[in-house]
Amino acid sequence: MLRQVSHALAIRASRPGLHDFTDQLASWLAQSGVSEGLLTVFCRHTSASLLIQENAAPAARRDLERYFERIAPEGADYEHDDEGPDDMPAHLRSALTHSQLSIPVSNGRMVLGTWQGVFLFEHRRDTPERHIALHLVGE
Amino acid sequence: MLRQVSHALAIRASRPGLHDFTDQLASWLAQSGVSEGLLTVFCRHTSASLLIQENAAPAARRDLERYFERIAPEGADYEHDDEGPDDMPAHLRSALTHSQLSIPVSNGRMVLGTWQGVFLFEHRRDTPERHIALHLVGE
Amino acid sequence: MLRQVSHALAIRASRPGLHDFTDQLASWLAQSGVSEGLLTVFCRHTSASLLIQENAAPAARRDLERYFERIAPEGADYEHDDEGPDDMPAHLRSALTHSQLSIPVSNGRMVLGTWQGVFLFEHRRDTPERHIALHLVGE
Repeated sequence: MLRQVSHALAIRASRPGLHDFTDQLASWLAQSGVSEGLLTVFCRHTSASLLIQENAAPAARRDLERYFERIAPEGADYEHDDEGPDDMPAHLRSALTHSQLSIPVSNGRMVLGTWQGVFLFEHRRDTPERHIALHLVGE
Repeated sequence: MLRQVSHALAIRASRPGLHDFTDQLASWLAQSGVSEGLLTVFCRHTSASLLIQENAAPAARRDLERYFERIAPEGADYEHDDEGPDDMPAHLRSALTHSQLSIPVSNGRMVLGTWQGVFLFEHRRDTPERHIALHLVGE
Repeated sequence: MLRQVSHALAIRASRPGLHDFTDQLASWLAQSGVSEGLLTVFCRHTSASLLIQENAAPAARRDLERYFERIAPEGADYEHDDEGPDDMPAHLRSALTHSQLSIPVSNGRMVLGTWQGVFLFEHRRDTPERHIALHLVGE
């Protein structure tokens, strides 16, 4: 019979940019007792976001980070800058990526492709602790 | 035991741009009888979209709107303009944001962060009525 | 009583760009025996992605493709180019669109709007076979 489990993760990236936390999700999943289902990952912030991306090539990660720095740059003429120059770019980069990801689970594992990792995309320089809500439905 | 509930919302933004409808979602959730679960919000249009963003600073909202006006502008050389100059930019801005959001629910409330609101992002000038499908699974 | 069903689709786009596979989803849904629920579509790649977009106007599709070619172009100065000039743009275009879509189901059909189709967005020139995981919860 289907059931659901919830959990809260706190994550702090070591630096701004893409921070792979696939292992933390996999560990929680492994001890949840659910082998088939749907895992939803939700980021409770508007200046950090989620992204599924290349997990093997550090150069791809760096290109991604540079790309978002370029298309949503610091130093543009933003009206909102209460919290400094990285404030509004953080909201824009979050808007262009994801607050939420839902990933099917099979045999106790997320059905990620070989080269897919789940990343926290930290957009603030001071890398605050981030709160991620997890929801799992399955059996 | 898990159950599901569905609902349809009709929303009309007062102006193009970001329109906060968190309260309408919260109201429906409160009377659904589900306290723990997963709420999915789905926008049934390709010229309006969904976004979770800053709910407190009007300046952040205005910067977001200006940003999308700039990166997916009217007046570019689009092939598709059947419905006027705001037609193709509406599709582009929708593609860059979201048709769907899934938000975990705990204690009868969406687990939004303090500064997160759920917005309809209206990309057309004539702000038609928009149809939003809701799905809630939980108990 | 709620139940869940999973499935795997293999899709190969005939050309790079937007490839409508709504019919394949609808066919699987029709034979799943689930009439009310939530369908999650998950793309197991970081160089192809998902998008819900205009299903009627080929010109809108072409404008969308040209737009993403322009904002995440080939030939920029990328560090990561192991797999050729379309490698890094593929990751960027995937990051700007979606790895996953969840769509409510009612009366055995996705609640898509009249003009909405579900597209695989193929970003590589050699259009490899793509693996899409489906998860359906409902009754």
